[in-house]
Amino acid sequence: MIDFGTYTLPYCSFGAQPHVGVGLRDQILDLTSAAASLLPAHATLFARGNLDAFLAAGPQVWAEVRSALAAWVVDGRAADYLVPADGVGLHMPFTVADYVDFYASENHASNLGRIFRPDSEPLTPNWKHMPIGYHGRAGTVVCSGTSVVRPSGQRRPPGAEISVGPSQRLDIEAEMGFVVGTGSTLGEPVGMDAFERHVFGACLVNDWSARDIQAWEYVPLGPFLGKSFATSISPWIVPLASLESARVAPPARTEKLQAYLDDSDSPPWGFDIALEVAINGHTISRPPFAGMYWTAAQQMAHMTANGATLRTGDLFASGTISGPDRDQRGALIELTWNGKEPVELPDGSGRSFLEDGDEVVISATAPGPDGATVVFGDVRGTIAPAR
Amino acid sequence: MIDFGTYTLPYCSFGAQPHVGVGLRDQILDLTSAAASLLPAHATLFARGNLDAFLAAGPQVWAEVRSALAAWVVDGRAADYLVPADGVGLHMPFTVADYVDFYASENHASNLGRIFRPDSEPLTPNWKHMPIGYHGRAGTVVCSGTSVVRPSGQRRPPGAEISVGPSQRLDIEAEMGFVVGTGSTLGEPVGMDAFERHVFGACLVNDWSARDIQAWEYVPLGPFLGKSFATSISPWIVPLASLESARVAPPARTEKLQAYLDDSDSPPWGFDIALEVAINGHTISRPPFAGMYWTAAQQMAHMTANGATLRTGDLFASGTISGPDRDQRGALIELTWNGKEPVELPDGSGRSFLEDGDEVVISATAPGPDGATVVFGDVRGTIAPAR
Repeated sequence: MIDFGTYTLPYCSFGAQPHVGVGLRDQILDLTSAAASLLPAHATLFARGNLDAFLAAGPQVWAEVRSALAAWVVDGRAADYLVPADGVGLHMPFTVADYVDFYASENHASNLGRIFRPDSEPLTPNWKHMPIGYHGRAGTVVCSGTSVVRPSGQRRPPGAEISVGPSQRLDIEAEMGFVVGTGSTLGEPVGMDAFERHVFGACLVNDWSARDIQAWEYVPLGPFLGKSFATSISPWIVPLASLESARVAPPARTEKLQAYLDDSDSPPWGFDIALEVAINGHTISRPPFAGMYWTAAQQMAHMTANGATLRTGDLFASGTISGPDRDQRGALIELTWNGKEPVELPDGSGRSFLEDGDEVVISATAPGPDGATVVFGDVRGTIAPAR
Repeated sequence: MIDFGTYTLPYCSFGAQPHVGVGLRDQILDLTSAAASLLPAHATLFARGNLDAFLAAGPQVWAEVRSALAAWVVDGRAADYLVPADGVGLHMPFTVADYVDFYASENHASNLGRIFRPDSEPLTPNWKHMPIGYHGRAGTVVCSGTSVVRPSGQRRPPGAEISVGPSQRLDIEAEMGFVVGTGSTLGEPVGMDAFERHVFGACLVNDWSARDIQAWEYVPLGPFLGKSFATSISPWIVPLASLESARVAPPARTEKLQAYLDDSDSPPWGFDIALEVAINGHTISRPPFAGMYWTAAQQMAHMTANGATLRTGDLFASGTISGPDRDQRGALIELTWNGKEPVELPDGSGRSFLEDGDEVVISATAPGPDGATVVFGDVRGTIAPAR
């Protein structure tokens, strides 16, 4: 297992009889058991073995539990509840309510615009005025390690007939996801300044994408079957509290933002998180989350500007993270420029898009205080042949 | 309350301490109580007061319960469990898992194409080859009777600056919704012939839409905040079993369909359901569901063609139902041709789009056997001023 050190303290659901766990160095602290003895006031929150009740409990409880964990590490009581991580199964850490996927990287949106709409401006006119997003399928958000069956579907390659069959252009999207803890009231927008009161933490996301299915279906109502077959998330949820030292300002804005999105005078909600994408053990990209144009706080404010509620378990993801350099792009369609420039792997093979048996692993770290490192749990998945 | 007669037998969740109910003439049969005495083998399915457990129980149980209800009506035992409906609160009848909205009326899609893209073909090239759809926000699907707060958001009217404020073009969409009972396995498509094994029943849907917000945001990823503030459903779920006599063939297809969508040799899954839309008690439209190009069985097959799962509680809606005639259009944007030809109300006022205080009611009926009528529960909602 990954070495999480002692600062990150990410949460998971583990074991045959699921308990809530906390990553501590390369072991798992059994929080369901520890809380029963050491934190009885909150023990019921962890009794069901996933994070749902804890997410709903809100920011004061999140802080109390994190403080308790830190104290148990210092005074040694944590040792009584450590479980070796080898061979322990990790599960979906929470029940996904709604899943929204944004499109917040200017480099990614521009690259896709150049590839798909070469005769138009790369960015649509709305892009710099609001974080564009859409709803994905919550029911197919799966835990890291779940095999991804190559999806079949309709596609119409340029100049060819419509056909149905396994996707020939199966891709990844390396993203960050944010997990809502506290819900909100229908009809009442949630402003950026309430970000920490509603959002519990972050995870890694691989928003698998079938580019051929997507290209044929997505006009006029957006992505649907090109995405809905699977979205993988890391089994570890990193609390916002551990990302305090990673906060950075987002890129300078080139357009004046509407008041509900204007973060020019607010503490910044960008995060300096460094991602790494590997295929079959070979790193193909290092996407920098710090360069994302739209922050998660802006996304939350936008998503609720019409009065839509947040619910416990809502997951909203950043969209593909791509930096300005070629080896910082978070999707194969950009890395290979629509398949024309395959990525070379050490075995001499090239990848335009994913092949059956390929394993994709996305990992990430961020700066913590005093030289500590915040470590995200991997999100991994292997492509199984079409059925 | 509506008179449901004795054939429809629609399900609801009612009362301060929620019980599952069945509409019988103009009363509610308390199924939670009746099952405890008369159908003990299935009583636990109704103990929690909503349909979730019953939906998951599958088609054999659905048939057994419907047979028992019919028997109690005939032998008079139903009378012991009838509750007067006046003043009884109705609740969301089930927990919505994923919500998908389709776009299955050729008249509606063509009208919107003509209004929004006057220089292009009204239908996009994919429209006749697959049921186009997108995911909506499950967390804001609300029960009939819930007030709809006028949403605010970004819009950029033609030739004007971007601004934020209450929607000036608040609209309805009259739709049918289908409710999934039995889930499916990740990676395994569900064919049209399995429709009755997975889909439990149908309800009425009003997919409220803020056209100004929608127009500015929807390229390239589809509708988002223009829709996500509220979607209302009827509190009554009509089982598929009661719609057997309403089955009709969909319109003739003008394009050869891919095998997984080809229903030319299958029993038809169109339904002859007649809808009626009223504003403040005045009927403005009578949309005919029988004319929908894509059936719910095709939508289910398409939605899972990539291996995406169905889950208990998934709701998928038809998209706006519009017939060929003006007074058959299911949205104001079509009825008023983008606001240019207001609908006249009896009080002499006109409506281009909805005003604060307007109450919208959508109702529907369908033919049953032997002259019986299948009656859908209304979906109603009143517009509250923007906050």
